[in-house]
Amino acid sequence: MVKIYLIMVYDIKEERVNKVLKIARKYLNWIQNSVLEGEISDAGFTKLKMEIKEVINLEEDSVIFYLMRTTRYTSREVIGIEKGGEETII
Amino acid sequence: MVKIYLIMVYDIKEERVNKVLKIARKYLNWIQNSVLEGEISDAGFTKLKMEIKEVINLEEDSVIFYLMRTTRYTSREVIGIEKGGEETII
Repeated sequence: MVKIYLIMVYDIKEERVNKVLKIARKYLNWIQNSVLEGEISDAGFTKLKMEIKEVINLEEDSVIFYLMRTTRYTSREVIGIEKGGEETII
Repeated sequence: MVKIYLIMVYDIKEERVNKVLKIARKYLNWIQNSVLEGEISDAGFTKLKMEIKEVINLEEDSVIFYLMRTTRYTSREVIGIEKGGEETII
């Protein structure tokens, strides 16, 4: 099973945002407004995308996934408060 | 000069959000609400962080930077509309 590290950022109309967040939290950790992160399997990622496609409006909403095959070349810096993400791996 | 690929996501109180966006757009490309991306030098990244620290409230706002030394192990998928980022490199 291939694991990837995923960053998900979304820009969703108010009326659908809670549905998207609820789905995303099943797979990833909430980091801050509109951002989640976490390790996920290929299969999990496929399911996550399918579930999200069912609730968003493809002509109005936007979800971006950044996939990392390894976190070795990646780091993370925060300015200000750390809102979520106790389990920060990067 | 070392170049990095940067993803910036911010969660900023309404009254300061335009200032932050104005600074960030000098260095990065706007991608969607609260997200910018782009290639930046180490020196540019240092300046970007300094400018942002001057306008945000460190106890209320949050800015996360994901730094990639190479984009070789990283990819990007979008569901829904592509709002910005004509110059997408990843």
